[in-house]
Amino acid sequence: MEVLQVLHMNKGAGETSYAQNSTVQSNIISITKPTTEEAILQLLCTNFPESIGIADLGCSCGPNVLSVISEIMDIICGKCKHLGRPTPEFRVYLNDLPSNDFNDIFGSLPAFYNKLKEENGNGFGPCFISGVPGSFYGRLFPGKSLHFVHSSSSLHWLSQTSPPWVLDAYSLQFQKDFSLFLKSRSEEVVPGGRMVLSFMGRRSTDPTTEESCYHWELLAQALMSMVLEGLVEEEKVDSFNAPYYAPCPEELKSEIQKEGSFIVDRLDAFEIDWDGGDNICNAGTLSSGQRVSKTIRAVVESMLESHFGRVIMDDLFQRFSMIVDDHLSRTRTKYFNMVLSIVKKD
Amino acid sequence: MEVLQVLHMNKGAGETSYAQNSTVQSNIISITKPTTEEAILQLLCTNFPESIGIADLGCSCGPNVLSVISEIMDIICGKCKHLGRPTPEFRVYLNDLPSNDFNDIFGSLPAFYNKLKEENGNGFGPCFISGVPGSFYGRLFPGKSLHFVHSSSSLHWLSQTSPPWVLDAYSLQFQKDFSLFLKSRSEEVVPGGRMVLSFMGRRSTDPTTEESCYHWELLAQALMSMVLEGLVEEEKVDSFNAPYYAPCPEELKSEIQKEGSFIVDRLDAFEIDWDGGDNICNAGTLSSGQRVSKTIRAVVESMLESHFGRVIMDDLFQRFSMIVDDHLSRTRTKYFNMVLSIVKKD
Repeated sequence: MEVLQVLHMNKGAGETSYAQNSTVQSNIISITKPTTEEAILQLLCTNFPESIGIADLGCSCGPNVLSVISEIMDIICGKCKHLGRPTPEFRVYLNDLPSNDFNDIFGSLPAFYNKLKEENGNGFGPCFISGVPGSFYGRLFPGKSLHFVHSSSSLHWLSQTSPPWVLDAYSLQFQKDFSLFLKSRSEEVVPGGRMVLSFMGRRSTDPTTEESCYHWELLAQALMSMVLEGLVEEEKVDSFNAPYYAPCPEELKSEIQKEGSFIVDRLDAFEIDWDGGDNICNAGTLSSGQRVSKTIRAVVESMLESHFGRVIMDDLFQRFSMIVDDHLSRTRTKYFNMVLSIVKKD
Repeated sequence: MEVLQVLHMNKGAGETSYAQNSTVQSNIISITKPTTEEAILQLLCTNFPESIGIADLGCSCGPNVLSVISEIMDIICGKCKHLGRPTPEFRVYLNDLPSNDFNDIFGSLPAFYNKLKEENGNGFGPCFISGVPGSFYGRLFPGKSLHFVHSSSSLHWLSQTSPPWVLDAYSLQFQKDFSLFLKSRSEEVVPGGRMVLSFMGRRSTDPTTEESCYHWELLAQALMSMVLEGLVEEEKVDSFNAPYYAPCPEELKSEIQKEGSFIVDRLDAFEIDWDGGDNICNAGTLSSGQRVSKTIRAVVESMLESHFGRVIMDDLFQRFSMIVDDHLSRTRTKYFNMVLSIVKKD
């Protein structure tokens, strides 16, 4: 599967769009905000640049994109005010794969720039926001151009799927990808620059543990129910391999040490509700299973559609929502997430 | 009218899309290529940067975008080969208004990067392409970050329409806009950096001469024929003011001198066929009027649609194509274009 072409969050602003169904990702961003704040304040202690390069890798689309950028800029502006110094020039780079809905993000920029001006007045900025399409498993930015890199809910996506008959293929692919990610960033981030990366993970060193992939397991159950009814071919299900891997803390630390350009400042784990909690859009009228189904659909539909065809999607995600409801009625499984704060060596 | 929101080339790849109807603009790029080449070679004579910043302002979408970038990079690579030196790091910035179809451009990037790699091998680049949404009548880029700026068929669009009852309103708006354009670029372009700008113009200092706006005149005739049949309200036509101005050489030189940051290296004029000549897509089966109509529609439909409503568009452009056929059968009017090559002072 060509991940570059087929993985993108659902576009637009409709009912199944990512823009309307990204509360779980928004919750993750909120939970990791203190780590982001700490990293930025430490960055500014040692190095106060006149022009600050900020990248959000795997930014996706919808309201989360500019709310992350807004938070980061607020932290920097707060510090400037505290120090009584002018704000730096902001260079903000929004990265995702070329198939991401950049039109959606860019459409919100005029209002965002107006808000910045209203809130901060003329003494602020300037702020230059650009879109950088490409895979973060390779170079994206000029050398030493970034001071702070943020990436949320993206690094659990691999650059490609591996042949499933190779033992440990997923783990090896993750090691290869994550090390390429670190190597690429090491050329782009200035010495003392920082990255805050959050993604799905697992507690145990055993990659087959339930917590890291249970939502995939239930999606497979929904697909198999369609196989039984002759709606999907079994070989289709067998040949689908999601380019997804939830690493454990030991794997991360080991890859960072092997690559050698960054030092781990902190690595924390946290759990998050599958269904986005109660503040999700339409929370009142939808079951938990339906909310989980909408959240997952907005993320994985592009991939499933290219493999199984568009026509089964509604049916598949309806089955999935019922299976999830049944599961959650018995056990309150949560996503296990990690947030990693690392510093570029001098 | 809020130009920022309503002016964009027709999106997608359908029959009325800009991507399918931009042969005239492609012809203009071809004609101005020698000027682009000369400017880049002169730039590299005095200043061979290790990292070169290139911007295309008002890049639009469709095949022209990456063909311009490809040409510029080829010129630079040819010079490097000639000098026996490695190619610089390319920083390529594609700018247009936020409502431009950036998704279309970004979708072509993976194939473009593959082609670069195939043609140039590993000793090339790296090349970083990003999208920069915003109006070029204001700051877009960090200070002193650009070496070469290209803009084709864009600067005849004003930032806003002016009240038509003000005498010389259009000319004043152009002066204000163009001077803001120069001032913004003067902060972004390095000393010795160059800009090649081409746009519609007029020979005469009299702004009402036919050549600069005759296609608008014929479009107004098509609209008035619809007024006569009760399909469009006359006040609607009266209240429509296109944010378009075709300057004369004297106006350009005067604004450049007044602003003071750039020196004119050359200013040439050329004429171009309304219908794109014979190499336009479907040239065999369409009349000249139909080809002109498709070309203009792909550019101005977003504006007309927001003012007159979507429903009259097919009818309007069919009438327009017949009026153009009738006109061209009597006189072979051409677009008058100018290409300006200017250098940033040290």
